[in-house]
Amino acid sequence: MTARSVEDHRRHVAALLAALHTRHAEDVSLGDALGRVLASDVHSPVDLPLFRNSQMDGYAVDAASIRVVPAVLPVRGVIAAGPVDPASHVPGTAYRIMTGAPIPDGADAVVPVEDTETTDGQVRITRARHAGEYVRERGSDVLAGTLLLASGEILAARHIAVLAAVGLQHVPVRTRPRVAIITTGAELVDAGSTLKPGEIFDSNGIALASSVRANGAEVVSIARSGDDPAEFQKLLAEATTAADLVLTSGGVSMGDFEVVRDALTSLGAEFGHVAMQPGGPQGTAVVDGVPVLNFPGNPVSVLVSFEVFARPEIRRAAGLPLIEPEELPLATAITSIPGKRQFLRARRTDSGVELVSGPGSHLVAAMAWADVLVDVPPDVTTLDAGQLVKVIPL
Amino acid sequence: MTARSVEDHRRHVAALLAALHTRHAEDVSLGDALGRVLASDVHSPVDLPLFRNSQMDGYAVDAASIRVVPAVLPVRGVIAAGPVDPASHVPGTAYRIMTGAPIPDGADAVVPVEDTETTDGQVRITRARHAGEYVRERGSDVLAGTLLLASGEILAARHIAVLAAVGLQHVPVRTRPRVAIITTGAELVDAGSTLKPGEIFDSNGIALASSVRANGAEVVSIARSGDDPAEFQKLLAEATTAADLVLTSGGVSMGDFEVVRDALTSLGAEFGHVAMQPGGPQGTAVVDGVPVLNFPGNPVSVLVSFEVFARPEIRRAAGLPLIEPEELPLATAITSIPGKRQFLRARRTDSGVELVSGPGSHLVAAMAWADVLVDVPPDVTTLDAGQLVKVIPL
Repeated sequence: MTARSVEDHRRHVAALLAALHTRHAEDVSLGDALGRVLASDVHSPVDLPLFRNSQMDGYAVDAASIRVVPAVLPVRGVIAAGPVDPASHVPGTAYRIMTGAPIPDGADAVVPVEDTETTDGQVRITRARHAGEYVRERGSDVLAGTLLLASGEILAARHIAVLAAVGLQHVPVRTRPRVAIITTGAELVDAGSTLKPGEIFDSNGIALASSVRANGAEVVSIARSGDDPAEFQKLLAEATTAADLVLTSGGVSMGDFEVVRDALTSLGAEFGHVAMQPGGPQGTAVVDGVPVLNFPGNPVSVLVSFEVFARPEIRRAAGLPLIEPEELPLATAITSIPGKRQFLRARRTDSGVELVSGPGSHLVAAMAWADVLVDVPPDVTTLDAGQLVKVIPL
Repeated sequence: MTARSVEDHRRHVAALLAALHTRHAEDVSLGDALGRVLASDVHSPVDLPLFRNSQMDGYAVDAASIRVVPAVLPVRGVIAAGPVDPASHVPGTAYRIMTGAPIPDGADAVVPVEDTETTDGQVRITRARHAGEYVRERGSDVLAGTLLLASGEILAARHIAVLAAVGLQHVPVRTRPRVAIITTGAELVDAGSTLKPGEIFDSNGIALASSVRANGAEVVSIARSGDDPAEFQKLLAEATTAADLVLTSGGVSMGDFEVVRDALTSLGAEFGHVAMQPGGPQGTAVVDGVPVLNFPGNPVSVLVSFEVFARPEIRRAAGLPLIEPEELPLATAITSIPGKRQFLRARRTDSGVELVSGPGSHLVAAMAWADVLVDVPPDVTTLDAGQLVKVIPL
């Protein structure tokens, strides 16, 4: 690939990852459904309430019998909430009834307990009620067949509550895109290791894994390759068996030991430079039918590459809303290098967006202190304090 | 407890749950740290970069030797990124060097490869560079001892990246409050069961569990009790052994079979009415030193009770920011019952906040369709379209 703009590379990546967006679904139990994305409309299999029941603790009556109050009615029994034999109402009598208990056939109102006095098998009712008062009719909340939740809903507790209330045990949700991660570089070692001169701790694996998970996808593997193309190819072959997308870091620029470039060029991969900073060197490939995005190796470049190229596509595939850019004023004036789109690490403050580091790409601590990327177009070289800029929330 | 206002009950609950807010910490591996809340400040144990290294693929030189260009220097070797024996620079010579590789002692600049031509063991340099150019000094990103992340940070991928880059394997995070849930009611059965007359599906257990998890706490158990106080007491005793907080649903109002009230009154629990709708009947207790919040049994009342009373305290204890109320205009006029603070289920629309149901508390489907609660003060009976109202985001 020749040098290209950020927008061109975004389009290229979007086309490459189009297959991710096929809406695959899986059933999960309600206990695992929090935060998942509904894969299809859900209609109620039942009426809610399931049966005609009392909205109050009180007495089930027929309204006709208490038109004149006080009225004294014989009490035929007590109906608690819970499994019961269906009772039948006899006009002119009452059942003591609890909230949620089935109303006897033929009764049409409930008199709340506070409007009654009970003595010796009888209830004295001091206030008249209309037919229907304090009666929850079957299906008055939801009729069987009603659309409960629409496809695409991100399931929160209140959604799970209604699914449980209609008796569902499982719910169809979008499958999470499965992502494999391969970091490269002979200099990388695990945290906790004793470093030899020239070695550094590998932060890209865990950073990419966390980014993937934070955007609704699943990490199927994290591997690390040294500078041997055969080792990388083997790890990549393993990764493509289980993943819908492979992300790699490092080995894509112009040095002598560019393992990703060396391993993938013969497989039809494209490497080149995107006119952005950080994150200029980029590659893409399709291996065994699986799209592969090759990010550069610097930890900040990796995170910016993920935000700019991978995050939108992963969220789209996961069914999550995209993170939309915002316009915010700059706290202080900034200058930018001409010809390159800059993604400057910055944070929101009361006086506007404030840079946390310069354009250099290696300041991983500053990346952690940032909460937005300021997106500076290639042709812009100076921006004044107070000027509105486009920012990408992190 | 006598009838009390929402604010009074909130204060009562906050006092009861004060012990939850003791900032307990635990160490988790970075792979499990996403979304967790940092329990203490983290300072860097090392300098970053860990060693002086090259920012470019090119040639490591001393700037003095290339003051006049073109300059032709003998190439003493290649330094790749990765474990290496430290090299020493000889003035007037060069090492070919890769991005991230250690710069030889005595070299002070890197000439990018694009400003060079290599022939026969020699490099011809066509552009002069100052001392320090393309050299990343040890500690130029972070010095050992620098504050990397402050206590209270909610860990995102970029935070985890910097923790990994400085070689940390674990990170101290706030322990999640441990919550046990007990639903009550002889009418409740599991989803998937065949219902007998009078039975309904238990949605409160999964709804409360999802609500707890969505707010940074952990669910240690979900149990269900029938109407036998001894059964409830046994489940409660089990719950308090493992939980920092117990939430119950049902059995708190004025009927004949109020299992929570019956079981807890002798243990010093307080039951009464909060001037709100839905969610009026409320109870609280402390059992074996563990606070217990007793919500009513209706599924909507349970969710509203959780949002109004439990959510703020659980989020505070988890170290998460509180969900602040917003002011939004009403899409249509509404009326409200005097004397009760109403929490009306509503959703955001382009023309304002629109109710999804009336004040009745049993409409669980409407709860699922809502994304805010409109908080209507007790003394307000009518609100006009366009009027600003306080809403609680769900």
